[in-house]
Amino acid sequence: MPGPAQNETFPAIVEAQGAPGPVLLVCEHASNAIPAEYGTLGLGEDLRQAHIAWDPGALGLARGLARRLGAGLVHAPVSRLVYDCNRPPDAAGAMAERSEMHPVPGNAGLTAAARARRVAAVYLPFHDALHAEIARRLTLGPAPVIVTIHSFTPVWFGVPRAVEFGVIHDADPRLAEAVLGEARATLGLTCEMNAPYSAADDVTHTLKLQALPYGLLNVMLELRNDLIATEAAQEDMADRLAPVLARAVARLRG
Amino acid sequence: MPGPAQNETFPAIVEAQGAPGPVLLVCEHASNAIPAEYGTLGLGEDLRQAHIAWDPGALGLARGLARRLGAGLVHAPVSRLVYDCNRPPDAAGAMAERSEMHPVPGNAGLTAAARARRVAAVYLPFHDALHAEIARRLTLGPAPVIVTIHSFTPVWFGVPRAVEFGVIHDADPRLAEAVLGEARATLGLTCEMNAPYSAADDVTHTLKLQALPYGLLNVMLELRNDLIATEAAQEDMADRLAPVLARAVARLRG
Repeated sequence: MPGPAQNETFPAIVEAQGAPGPVLLVCEHASNAIPAEYGTLGLGEDLRQAHIAWDPGALGLARGLARRLGAGLVHAPVSRLVYDCNRPPDAAGAMAERSEMHPVPGNAGLTAAARARRVAAVYLPFHDALHAEIARRLTLGPAPVIVTIHSFTPVWFGVPRAVEFGVIHDADPRLAEAVLGEARATLGLTCEMNAPYSAADDVTHTLKLQALPYGLLNVMLELRNDLIATEAAQEDMADRLAPVLARAVARLRG
Repeated sequence: MPGPAQNETFPAIVEAQGAPGPVLLVCEHASNAIPAEYGTLGLGEDLRQAHIAWDPGALGLARGLARRLGAGLVHAPVSRLVYDCNRPPDAAGAMAERSEMHPVPGNAGLTAAARARRVAAVYLPFHDALHAEIARRLTLGPAPVIVTIHSFTPVWFGVPRAVEFGVIHDADPRLAEAVLGEARATLGLTCEMNAPYSAADDVTHTLKLQALPYGLLNVMLELRNDLIATEAAQEDMADRLAPVLARAVARLRG
């Protein structure tokens, strides 16, 4: 019987490529799928469904935003437990041996060759496809506005989080400031800048790699996942968030 | 008779991948080759051999440095007149209609589709391959030190240039400052910082795209091309420049 294919790659999925708007939504943690060659990573079904494997609700929210904004969408097809596409290859969190309080047995003591294979199978195909879509939009115009969509768990290491909507930036805060201003005025959620994480926690790799080199407007958005737990809630949140994003972009691009 | 292949791509060439040293040399303007589907771009043989098409001497110097430093080398297989891999897709200079005082007829009035095809054929395959090599080194360690190798013409728009060795940085000047210090002490050339160009002239795209997102030490080096016009001169310059680079890297990495 042949062994698993060692050279299979998992490129990012590009949706709504012909959408007319400038926004390009990115969802690095869209999926909790673990390709067959990685088994279960030693985790039970409950943990493979939990926030350590993906950002629950983020893809549904991103699709709702894409439809309302006429935006494109690029998302990862593989769980961040295999490779977290929002981390560089030398980060401990790229192929985490532990996530929150949970050990990930299938990531313990990976050889250099195994790490390199995951980089080649997941990280590079994700970022190559995102880069190609950004380059295509730069060539044809208008320059894309990069908005990454994430969700976070209401309880972290046993402590409840009060923030409901987090707006995170790296070196270029322009869009984050505009989004936070619009959100605080109209969204009716507890909104904070650079919470529950910030660039200092190494969560802005995609912004650094894909947006800053081109001077593109960019921001990372974080929704508390209990607010987008069902399809209906995702649609409702997209209804509320789409105009916030549209006004913030219009304020900066005219 | 079939027409030219429209989907042919021209990935960067990776040499000395197993080299033990931390330096990764990059030569975006290594070649003056124009793939058959682009004809001559409307230029005579003299201009296709001139500095507008490539950086004469840069690849020979880079190979000499790679051998002496145990460095890897990534270089472009196609003339910058087809696509300048050190420019983003929305830069006028990416597919220049004019270079110095010379019009480039084959680049005049390109359609959006033609521009997108060159981005997909030349720009993305170059940067994907460079990115893969950087990611591979980040995964296996040590983190690479990015050194791009360029040459410039002694006379620009009729004006002679006095500078012989230019050291150029983007947002992170650490390696540039170390190289310039070592060069002024030992190289015996007229050395300048951010000359004959600087980041303000949009010449640091590769550094922004490939080195800054990972916090890698990086610098762009420019040699006046009359100093590296022959193989013997390239070897001699590599003899002089390799210890300068080695000492600068050692100063920062210990």
